[in-house]
Amino acid sequence: MQLIDTFKDYFRQFTILSDEEWITISKYFEIRMLSKNEFLLKQGEICNLVAYISYGTLIYIKITDNADEITTDFALQGEWVTDNFSRLNNSPSFINIKAFENTELFIIKHHNLVDLYEKFPKLEKFGRILTEKAFVKIIQHSIDLQILQAKERYLKLLDKYPEIFQKIPLFHIANYLGIAPKSLSRIRKEITGR
Amino acid sequence: MQLIDTFKDYFRQFTILSDEEWITISKYFEIRMLSKNEFLLKQGEICNLVAYISYGTLIYIKITDNADEITTDFALQGEWVTDNFSRLNNSPSFINIKAFENTELFIIKHHNLVDLYEKFPKLEKFGRILTEKAFVKIIQHSIDLQILQAKERYLKLLDKYPEIFQKIPLFHIANYLGIAPKSLSRIRKEITGR
Repeated sequence: MQLIDTFKDYFRQFTILSDEEWITISKYFEIRMLSKNEFLLKQGEICNLVAYISYGTLIYIKITDNADEITTDFALQGEWVTDNFSRLNNSPSFINIKAFENTELFIIKHHNLVDLYEKFPKLEKFGRILTEKAFVKIIQHSIDLQILQAKERYLKLLDKYPEIFQKIPLFHIANYLGIAPKSLSRIRKEITGR
Repeated sequence: MQLIDTFKDYFRQFTILSDEEWITISKYFEIRMLSKNEFLLKQGEICNLVAYISYGTLIYIKITDNADEITTDFALQGEWVTDNFSRLNNSPSFINIKAFENTELFIIKHHNLVDLYEKFPKLEKFGRILTEKAFVKIIQHSIDLQILQAKERYLKLLDKYPEIFQKIPLFHIANYLGIAPKSLSRIRKEITGR
């Protein structure tokens, strides 16, 4: 019942559903555990799922042609994880998504989600808003990398995710922010030293 | 009644609405004409509208710090036009949107669209799918610029918009495709010459 209770609480912001509806909806989801460093998605695969993180942390990693790893995003407890581009476009993914610690997910397959929207149009609002947020997030990050100073990017992230350094090593955060790890350490010291 | 008829036809792919519902919905829209080169949105403004192009063509232009113009997108008859990032994030736009010929738009203000979703939840599906398509389009274009050869990008665009060269000058298309205008002319000649 953990899944239903979590979702009832979460979806209240979008729509009200009856207990019977919740039972039907919950059957579309499966619970999956990922161990630390286990992959949810590998570059080249088509992403066919959307997952709610009931516990844990995941990171998105892109491997460049030079075999460099770039941390392009991360997702924490209470957030959703998917590769929207691969999933909506039904095309091979350019990223890897892996668990950064032991992680519990409520997973729905893409075709089941499409089916769920048909059966419960009330969930469309959730789908619209989730996509809108993903759109804004990915564009915002790309703009921030272009126009903000390193320190501003760091402060912005910290403002949104105050607990991020407890969850994700500095190396990956620096990588996500487009800052050399040494520079990020220096920025952190400067700010803490005030 | 042109607006209602066009929309009834268009929205049939998402949902069925009664004539009374259509009359209510149509009141949320206004018809606006843009002359050639008139702006729908200017860089720095917050985009507060979504518009359906009932006739005409618009282009999206970004002006760089060096005052160079980059054509980042375009929209033709039967498509929707907005700056999703600015609109959803309520932040100043990084782009200009201007009419490329005399253009007729059915415009809805963003706050009215939000209101419309509340009153007609059946329209949520339209909102979700439109955002999903915008998401895929913007990411796909960015990926194409990175991984496809100039010729492949040209052929892909032509496949999707066979009539594009009748609508938009080669200079803007070349710019959008990240190709020098001279190179695009050469590629076109090569292909036509076969």
